[in-house]
Amino acid sequence: MANKRVLVVGGDGYCGWATALHLSALGYEVGILDNLIRRHWDATHHIDTLTPIATIDRRIAAWQRLTGRKIDLFIADVAEYGQLAPAIETFAPDSIVHFGEQRSAPFSMVDREHAVMTQTMNVTGTLNMLFAMRDFAPQAHLVKLGTMGEYGTPNIDIEEGYIEIQHNGRRDVLPYPKQPGSFYHLSKVHDSDNISFACRIWGLRATDLNQGVVYGNSNETGDDPELVNRFDYDGLFGTVLNRFCVEAVVGHPLSVYGAGGQTRSFIDLRDTVACVELSIANPPDPGRLQVFNQFTETFSVLELAERVQRVATQRGLTATIEHRENPRVEREAHYYNAKNTSLLALGLQPHLLEDATIAAMLDLAELHRDRVDLAQIDPNVQWAPGTSRGRNASSAHAPSPILPPASASLTPLRR
Amino acid sequence: MANKRVLVVGGDGYCGWATALHLSALGYEVGILDNLIRRHWDATHHIDTLTPIATIDRRIAAWQRLTGRKIDLFIADVAEYGQLAPAIETFAPDSIVHFGEQRSAPFSMVDREHAVMTQTMNVTGTLNMLFAMRDFAPQAHLVKLGTMGEYGTPNIDIEEGYIEIQHNGRRDVLPYPKQPGSFYHLSKVHDSDNISFACRIWGLRATDLNQGVVYGNSNETGDDPELVNRFDYDGLFGTVLNRFCVEAVVGHPLSVYGAGGQTRSFIDLRDTVACVELSIANPPDPGRLQVFNQFTETFSVLELAERVQRVATQRGLTATIEHRENPRVEREAHYYNAKNTSLLALGLQPHLLEDATIAAMLDLAELHRDRVDLAQIDPNVQWAPGTSRGRNASSAHAPSPILPPASASLTPLRR
Repeated sequence: MANKRVLVVGGDGYCGWATALHLSALGYEVGILDNLIRRHWDATHHIDTLTPIATIDRRIAAWQRLTGRKIDLFIADVAEYGQLAPAIETFAPDSIVHFGEQRSAPFSMVDREHAVMTQTMNVTGTLNMLFAMRDFAPQAHLVKLGTMGEYGTPNIDIEEGYIEIQHNGRRDVLPYPKQPGSFYHLSKVHDSDNISFACRIWGLRATDLNQGVVYGNSNETGDDPELVNRFDYDGLFGTVLNRFCVEAVVGHPLSVYGAGGQTRSFIDLRDTVACVELSIANPPDPGRLQVFNQFTETFSVLELAERVQRVATQRGLTATIEHRENPRVEREAHYYNAKNTSLLALGLQPHLLEDATIAAMLDLAELHRDRVDLAQIDPNVQWAPGTSRGRNASSAHAPSPILPPASASLTPLRR
Repeated sequence: MANKRVLVVGGDGYCGWATALHLSALGYEVGILDNLIRRHWDATHHIDTLTPIATIDRRIAAWQRLTGRKIDLFIADVAEYGQLAPAIETFAPDSIVHFGEQRSAPFSMVDREHAVMTQTMNVTGTLNMLFAMRDFAPQAHLVKLGTMGEYGTPNIDIEEGYIEIQHNGRRDVLPYPKQPGSFYHLSKVHDSDNISFACRIWGLRATDLNQGVVYGNSNETGDDPELVNRFDYDGLFGTVLNRFCVEAVVGHPLSVYGAGGQTRSFIDLRDTVACVELSIANPPDPGRLQVFNQFTETFSVLELAERVQRVATQRGLTATIEHRENPRVEREAHYYNAKNTSLLALGLQPHLLEDATIAAMLDLAELHRDRVDLAQIDPNVQWAPGTSRGRNASSAHAPSPILPPASASLTPLRR
């Protein structure tokens, strides 16, 4: 097996943990590098994964007990070069999968401190990674997680990273213009620009994976209680499909922000880990940044709510749909046609969103129903608090999410 | 006069100081906000302006003594919100001219620390400014200095910030794709993306000035010794025209990096201050980021060397041209056609580069000939040290510029 040694940065997170196990199961020699800050943020922001997750040490020990496979662990912060560089030098990776960033749009929009922290942390971490690669692993392949949200919602087709432009009788292939929708999404655009430059001047090689919203579970994280993956449904880190499933299970209306015509890209976690493996197996030439759009389907938010409503109703749950004022500043009806042919051409076999997948998510939510805290699903971060836009969009200013969330305006949890 | 109160951030620098005086002379109520870090960097990197510049306090006192006009001074760091926000609240600017960033490409390429510092400092400062405006000056107009270097050298015409793209039968006007050529230039792209987003979600208004390389002096900084502007010719902060003039005066060959076909945009400092004033007088509507390309001419590096050589020869100086290995990774021959019609349409009367301007720069260099330190003009920052590209481009690794520069390989100064 080529590219055998893989360092998964952010390997304690939702996508990172699943990726680490998937690659380990395939026979890669896997290391995890993580500073565990996400678990700390959960605590300091009064939120929690619906599923109880084991410590990283217990997770790794359980994996070894169950499979005989060893995973190296580096408790280290990519944004601290003195922690990152020795890990790169020691582990000597062939490939580096970089999930190690603050990955939430609402978190980045809480206030100035969260915006600055998101951008400085993400940008510094990726810059550090590029310098560490230059100096200690120049042949390694960086597989960097970006987001489809980098593109925004342009009125033309979204290509994979680059677009050929004809202009005044000349032509060039240039980076696809980006219109990101949060300080988090902006940080990913900054990263992409920095990586592109480093590849160009230092001859590094990298793959930028512009990923859609991820849902579900991978094969490796599904069963054992000590391998269980996180399930975020809160207003800061939760994703829309998770939230709908939790709402359906506890009898809360499925809360659609605004008109619900916002169309986004989605991908099953089983496909995420497959895409990362395909990327590792297909590095670009030195000096080049290749860009893949990593999603399998697009849905509007309202379509997703209706999908969950249908499956929930079949199970005898009462799931109504409620439109709420949109805390974000975004188009609620727009053109959206994004390309995703590269990973399919490399062999991806998509798991499209089936009712069975939604049913499995509802099962999981029901299993952990006693852990649901409805106060956490309040969209308590406004994109434009205190501005004319914010006042138009919402009748009240956002409470700070670093205070305990107030659930007064939400349906209380009934058992 | 509308938009009367102007805060010039970075008002102690080369462009900032000239802008502050120009606006003050026109009757604007001017404040300067600066953390004076540039003077500190000069000291710590063993470099110095050719012209002896007065302290900021003596500068401002001299301006008041000579003109009767007062300039408010805030010694504050834009990257420290606790320093920036009170200044914005106190001064209550109608317009904010933001020069307050690390502005050197070679400085950003020295090593990892300089790269990370450049990006975190610049990005944090501009994010802080946007939040301070949102909360304390939402009607103010941000005039932000960017650089033509953000665009790189695409094979199509460079437009002003945006480009209409027709693609697969649809069209949209999107941000112009950028291909910046250093970690510094990248930081300016990050800034532009952040500003665009803040305008969109908070209804702020901003003008992004993508400026070319600036040369010369403004009318206000020319004469009085305590108002004199800085003149950077060193390998870190110096600009190419300044360096050629100093080289010509001391009998050093004019050092052209590589083939010299690199074409760049240029502007006279008198036009810089006029462009800023035109921008202040023409703010965009709330919610919009307008982008102007702020240059008047383009030259290849070799053309500039030949211009200086001609004027120097007329004065009896011996000015040879010497091609040196290029420390940068860049195209040395390329298409370059950038638009600059917006500021002309607003009334800019350009000062094109005349022999008299070069002669005045040579005069200045001769006046301060005894302050020339030839060791400072060594291009001691490599874009790709220690990589295969760096080794191809240069036979030796770069010495760290935070050590005293070694002048052994350069012609020693002869008086």
